[in-house]
Amino acid sequence: MTESTPAPEGVDVLLPWAGLADRHGPWPAGVRVHVWDGTTPEPQLPEEVLCKVGLWVMPYAVPGTERLLPRLTGLRAVQSLSAGVEKLLPVVPQGVSLHNGRGLHDASTAEHALGLVLAAQRDLPRWVADQAAGRWEPHFTRSLADCRVAVVGYGSIGQALERRLVACEAEVVRVARRARPEQDVHAVTELPALLPTVDVVVLVLPESPSTAGLLDAGLLAALPDDALVVNVGRGRTLDTEALLAEVRAGRLRAALDVTDPEPLPADHPLRTAPGVLVTPHVAGGSASFRPRAERLVVEQVRRFARKEPLLNAFGA
Amino acid sequence: MTESTPAPEGVDVLLPWAGLADRHGPWPAGVRVHVWDGTTPEPQLPEEVLCKVGLWVMPYAVPGTERLLPRLTGLRAVQSLSAGVEKLLPVVPQGVSLHNGRGLHDASTAEHALGLVLAAQRDLPRWVADQAAGRWEPHFTRSLADCRVAVVGYGSIGQALERRLVACEAEVVRVARRARPEQDVHAVTELPALLPTVDVVVLVLPESPSTAGLLDAGLLAALPDDALVVNVGRGRTLDTEALLAEVRAGRLRAALDVTDPEPLPADHPLRTAPGVLVTPHVAGGSASFRPRAERLVVEQVRRFARKEPLLNAFGA
Repeated sequence: MTESTPAPEGVDVLLPWAGLADRHGPWPAGVRVHVWDGTTPEPQLPEEVLCKVGLWVMPYAVPGTERLLPRLTGLRAVQSLSAGVEKLLPVVPQGVSLHNGRGLHDASTAEHALGLVLAAQRDLPRWVADQAAGRWEPHFTRSLADCRVAVVGYGSIGQALERRLVACEAEVVRVARRARPEQDVHAVTELPALLPTVDVVVLVLPESPSTAGLLDAGLLAALPDDALVVNVGRGRTLDTEALLAEVRAGRLRAALDVTDPEPLPADHPLRTAPGVLVTPHVAGGSASFRPRAERLVVEQVRRFARKEPLLNAFGA
Repeated sequence: MTESTPAPEGVDVLLPWAGLADRHGPWPAGVRVHVWDGTTPEPQLPEEVLCKVGLWVMPYAVPGTERLLPRLTGLRAVQSLSAGVEKLLPVVPQGVSLHNGRGLHDASTAEHALGLVLAAQRDLPRWVADQAAGRWEPHFTRSLADCRVAVVGYGSIGQALERRLVACEAEVVRVARRARPEQDVHAVTELPALLPTVDVVVLVLPESPSTAGLLDAGLLAALPDDALVVNVGRGRTLDTEALLAEVRAGRLRAALDVTDPEPLPADHPLRTAPGVLVTPHVAGGSASFRPRAERLVVEQVRRFARKEPLLNAFGA
């Protein structure tokens, strides 16, 4: 599966998809493209090709493909399409640069977070149930417009979410692990004073020792009555038992794409608690990922062929 | 229920809510505010007050309150908080100006339309069912980002929706009854050529002889496979039987806040058709209405007291 004519002075790249040149224009001269999508145990490529691969773009979300690394003896750069690549660091050989998929999931994740907020504010789960039950009982609902929304985790996803919330006439309170006064970003240590002023809090935090259990019973208690708690980051950044106590008391509501534990067991109380909407960790996985991933891959191949620095270097 | 001291040279206004001055600042000198919220059969006000009311803001969405009109013998202006006031025109006396609630529902309606699009694209109804059924079966979904969305009806709600869609990285195709080339607005007569190019079509049309059945079998057939049809305007602008045929064939999907007929009967096939989400005409009725309505009422009272032209004159 080699797409262009061999050129001794060229570069060999191993990509997860064929056909990129059809959608994104021809490859630079000398680029030899090989394809492995991870659905076969190993690439259908001879060893003398594998050992020449200089850039490998790993198949997306296929566990175990890193076992190919030791056979890519000529590798200089490896590109993952995931944002979190901590687990790859120990297995990437010395001298090979690691690049992550930062930004590829921003649109998808921010969009799902917005969908969860709107679904909760506008009573979508109720209407879904009413549709099936034959009911037609309209009532006034909450709105997103005019709400004050704390976005906790102000990286590229948080910023993508902010653009969507502002277009919906909501006001955003920016919160990150460290304050950035020049961007009006508050530190998480300010949450006890901020949370009483918001209608919605959205967690967009990665998992780390410093974020584990961050939204705990004390911070949940600081939220006003009827506030909405949304989580599209990692389940463990929110204290599940404390949240359950608040929603069972009818004091808070929640919309969660990530949970602790995950998968959420069939009999877990979050599934039936009042005012709780759960989706199964699907925020990042939507159709908007692929075109963004393809654009990154094409750019990285072009940079690699021209011996320019690649984007999204991780842990350098 | 009179909030300020009588002043013979002042003006009497009848409003549906008390307490506006607490939230919006004091009334201009000479304004005498009376209140009737429509929950009693008639205002608890003596005839000599009723006959002096110069501006009446009608209670919102309380059927039959227009029966008060003949007793307001000193009336000069009547303000409805609804956008559609066609039914009031014949009962408003000669010489009394009629003002509508144009714009008050824009944020709410656009927000719900966005919520319906996101719910359909991101499989929210499926996740709601899975939550209750104990399932955790994530799959890749469609996205709103990158979609081309035809907004049919490009008034203030359509424009509010466009701002939200653009923030979600969608591309908007503007369509209205008449083309406005200077705003890049296409005419509905161009829909046969436009619809094959879009992923989503949102109807935001009022009911009129020219819009009845506008999205008919022929135009639905022009949509590409898997396209989403959204209606937040009026149910009769969409051919229900033609839509049912398309969704039953698995060719189109739909998210409808308005239906034909309405209320939707308990056994209506739209309720169980595959890929159809129905909400019970709740797009305009959310918490974002009240603050916008209050701001309009306060502005109208101030204009009335200063003998300035009121906003939102209808059918003048």
